[in-house]
Amino acid sequence: MKIDILTLFPEMFTGPFDSSIIKRARDKGLLEICFTDIRNFSANKHNTVDDTPYGGGAGMVMQAPPIMRALEHVRKQRGDMPARVILMCPTGLTFNQYWARDLACEEHLVIICGHYEGIDERVRELAVTDELSIGDYVLTGGELPAMVVVDAVSRMIPGVLGEKASAEDDSFYRGLLEYPQYTRPRAYGELSVPEILMSGHHEKIRRWRRRQALLKTLERRPDLLREDVLSNEDRDILREIVDNIQGVIKGKA
Amino acid sequence: MKIDILTLFPEMFTGPFDSSIIKRARDKGLLEICFTDIRNFSANKHNTVDDTPYGGGAGMVMQAPPIMRALEHVRKQRGDMPARVILMCPTGLTFNQYWARDLACEEHLVIICGHYEGIDERVRELAVTDELSIGDYVLTGGELPAMVVVDAVSRMIPGVLGEKASAEDDSFYRGLLEYPQYTRPRAYGELSVPEILMSGHHEKIRRWRRRQALLKTLERRPDLLREDVLSNEDRDILREIVDNIQGVIKGKA
Repeated sequence: MKIDILTLFPEMFTGPFDSSIIKRARDKGLLEICFTDIRNFSANKHNTVDDTPYGGGAGMVMQAPPIMRALEHVRKQRGDMPARVILMCPTGLTFNQYWARDLACEEHLVIICGHYEGIDERVRELAVTDELSIGDYVLTGGELPAMVVVDAVSRMIPGVLGEKASAEDDSFYRGLLEYPQYTRPRAYGELSVPEILMSGHHEKIRRWRRRQALLKTLERRPDLLREDVLSNEDRDILREIVDNIQGVIKGKA
Repeated sequence: MKIDILTLFPEMFTGPFDSSIIKRARDKGLLEICFTDIRNFSANKHNTVDDTPYGGGAGMVMQAPPIMRALEHVRKQRGDMPARVILMCPTGLTFNQYWARDLACEEHLVIICGHYEGIDERVRELAVTDELSIGDYVLTGGELPAMVVVDAVSRMIPGVLGEKASAEDDSFYRGLLEYPQYTRPRAYGELSVPEILMSGHHEKIRRWRRRQALLKTLERRPDLLREDVLSNEDRDILREIVDNIQGVIKGKA
């Protein structure tokens, strides 16, 4: 997969993209990431790419022409390969794991990082195919969101993760939050690892973990517990939980 | 504000924290960020800090003792200042602008970046005060989420943003998505700036922008349009929109 990132701050990507999974994916040739500095496409000698908003107001707005020229440059370099052009902005749709899976199927992505108060609306109308936000909070620019999207999408490209199982166990792959994990030492202060995990009964451990994942999701993100993510076993476990609760209530009735 | 980040990959933060708003806040002395490499608190000569999970399964789990030692080290350095200890993990509560505002009131934050398949559950029980996730997608580690939280929180610290107005205009500050922005050139290809923005009628422009913000929110994030974010003017504008729509329907009835 090829990803072109259009930004005013290419140096921000140095640390995150030279570490961990993304670095490995780049080293393996599964992912090619190029940065295009929008400032290089300014038409004036001061290299400015922003201006005050029409109609007044605080802050500066990124101008359309430099962004459109940068985009044109990228398209030419890639031989006009069809591409999704994604604008990272707070008014975008909320990025999630479904988006990550969907974008991982593309051959070429262009990500535009917004900045300042925003970006001239005409860039959206002329070039952008998808507007994405990574959550309901205000960030300084689209650079961190672009890194988040690239990280999540990279993990979904076949061959990037060493073990397939490792990806599929993660939260949101299977619709539930993760069960608690424990590793050495067995006793730490007063806290020990739950006995069941040392029992060697693989089937009981699997079911205990699923139960914990259901309880954690019920506690923290009940919105994720939808009909379509529940297996028959999940339903059985939820019935057991209901029975437990009803047993407790009964004593009080 | 002082922020201590406990991570296995301190080098990842180089680019993002040396740019833009965060750099300016650090330069001004409003924000002090320190990194503690958890690997330095390993108890073995190979500097490992992870191990296989009890009960089996793919991947590695971060051990409790090195993290707890790193935390103890940070606490001693800060003179045992009381702190929120935040764990970035996919099972956490979803970070949003309310969280950003809340955390900006603290004097000292510790952020632990999870990695691998997870972190020994006992760290949560012993030390963590808040578990946060930045969204419903799977990332390689807690480093990018920590950067996102630091960026959003920094913007809320008084004095960090140059112009107060600039922060307050942003989406999510006032509960609605942003209205469209335009800047020079006035005509770009076939697309011109809306006439009203050049009218000079400040009051009309303000109302037009509010109307556009309401329409954009209605289109993309109707979940944000709640009773408590709407002003009386917003209600008037929404009534006008309803009247417009009913006018259109009437023709068909």
